[in-house]
Amino acid sequence: MRRHYFLEEYCIIAAERKKRPSDFRRERGRERSDPKTCPFCPGNEEMTPPAVAAYTVDGVGPDGVERVRDWWARSFPNLYPAVTADPEPPTREWVADRARGFHEVIIESPDHDADPSEFSRQELERLVTIYRDRYASHIADPGVGYVSIFKNWGRVAGASLSHTHSQLVALPIVPPALLRELEAIGRSPRCPYCSLVEREAASDRLIFENGRFVLIAPFFSEAPYETWILPKGHAPSLEGLDPRGLEDLAEALGEALRRQDRLLSGPAYNYTIRQLPDRRYHLNLRIHPAISALAGFERNTGIFINSVPPEAAARELREA
Amino acid sequence: MRRHYFLEEYCIIAAERKKRPSDFRRERGRERSDPKTCPFCPGNEEMTPPAVAAYTVDGVGPDGVERVRDWWARSFPNLYPAVTADPEPPTREWVADRARGFHEVIIESPDHDADPSEFSRQELERLVTIYRDRYASHIADPGVGYVSIFKNWGRVAGASLSHTHSQLVALPIVPPALLRELEAIGRSPRCPYCSLVEREAASDRLIFENGRFVLIAPFFSEAPYETWILPKGHAPSLEGLDPRGLEDLAEALGEALRRQDRLLSGPAYNYTIRQLPDRRYHLNLRIHPAISALAGFERNTGIFINSVPPEAAARELREA
Repeated sequence: MRRHYFLEEYCIIAAERKKRPSDFRRERGRERSDPKTCPFCPGNEEMTPPAVAAYTVDGVGPDGVERVRDWWARSFPNLYPAVTADPEPPTREWVADRARGFHEVIIESPDHDADPSEFSRQELERLVTIYRDRYASHIADPGVGYVSIFKNWGRVAGASLSHTHSQLVALPIVPPALLRELEAIGRSPRCPYCSLVEREAASDRLIFENGRFVLIAPFFSEAPYETWILPKGHAPSLEGLDPRGLEDLAEALGEALRRQDRLLSGPAYNYTIRQLPDRRYHLNLRIHPAISALAGFERNTGIFINSVPPEAAARELREA
Repeated sequence: MRRHYFLEEYCIIAAERKKRPSDFRRERGRERSDPKTCPFCPGNEEMTPPAVAAYTVDGVGPDGVERVRDWWARSFPNLYPAVTADPEPPTREWVADRARGFHEVIIESPDHDADPSEFSRQELERLVTIYRDRYASHIADPGVGYVSIFKNWGRVAGASLSHTHSQLVALPIVPPALLRELEAIGRSPRCPYCSLVEREAASDRLIFENGRFVLIAPFFSEAPYETWILPKGHAPSLEGLDPRGLEDLAEALGEALRRQDRLLSGPAYNYTIRQLPDRRYHLNLRIHPAISALAGFERNTGIFINSVPPEAAARELREA
């Protein structure tokens, strides 16, 4: 039973459970679908709302009267939003509030069959730059408290369309989970993420590092083969990274996705970016292969059982 | 955006998202497998550890030198435990502790093809009585802080074997999620669960009620068609129920499973029992159909997006 680095949270590392019959769902993340009917494919831009940002060789800008066609990435409002700029009034029972916000879809590649684990260095650098830009654009809004950027790859990971895409949800509040982090960080004499980066980089849970970033299997791992990417120097968000920092993040993300892809045969997965405008926070990106279910125990206790010790996961991912 | 009744937690009710293409995983909970090789079937008792409690017409007792054969329910240690009575010493890095505890499997029926949504009244009453007995047996251990009882039905809900079974995990600590509940309850002048039962029973989120229990789609619903079963009178655990209370709980559980089965075509699901020996706590049982994934947004923010308003879920479940 391991405690989170600095929060009152626990996980259980139970290697015995890996011997269970039919333990892991090994559903692949990649799926086939028809590009002709894919709303995320070039030529089908009219199937989505106008882009707020279309990335082309000539620069970035929104769709005009005509949709931009020659994009290499494209961000537009989600047709099925979780939050909107003008939500319906809430029920007046209990405590409810308008979920005012923005929900964007970011198409990372015009290629219908692109797989992020095969992205080139240039594609990865473009990707993290887009994340930084879209984050910066929304966090500047005084009505926005938090900007969640994440990717669901594969049906079991929650993706409803197979063409590779990320999502951005801008919320009016800072989620309680992040507030609890900030409180704990505020009580600590030194940034606990800075401490854990140093210690993990010197441990057997380090998978890869470059000048500015580490890729680790964290001591506190809630899911098998969970990995975290963190900057070695303190930076609260993607906005705090210089060009070299973005390059190193792109490289670390590529290493993480390729190693995971080889080791787990192209699994479905989620990755999510945690960042805040609060200077005390420390940017981190977390990758969760979707190979274990959220089951009764986890729902009942909030404690996750992980059947792969992160030390073993790190060794396998280093060798992959 | 709705706040939990008494905790600093939020969910987002986004009915728009239900219109997404391929929104729900409609994988059925029931699966076929061969009873001959099923370790949970009568005749195969040697494939599992000896029972700590075998329930027969003659009463309850553990297996002796020979395994009990004519059981109608059977509880034994999990062969692949998350926690054990004698765990390995923890790593000495960061904060870790021995996950000392017990992990039991409860076979609810000798029938390999039994489906809990088709359980008779008698089977349901026996089931909740077993839950009460096994809870009482473990919570009496001074080394045990919490007893988690839950059921995973179907592969996507985390079940690794199809023969119907529940699980019990006795932990050395009270999980932080439960501690946070107790803290909030302690600050409240009146049990907030008692209040919510009264208000929900008078709302359009009531699905079913009998003398002692209500079945509701809670105002704060993290998952589509999530339902809660709560006693109308204050009771911290199953131990606080008299025979009439157990009967009414069994009836409410049967109503919940049958209605869910009809409406969602036999979905995979989890149900979990929350209870504590602390007299301030209020027993509750939560049922989550496994039709939405734990995806990037939920992992990133701790906030769940639910595409079915509980008011609509309750209406559909009342009519099912």
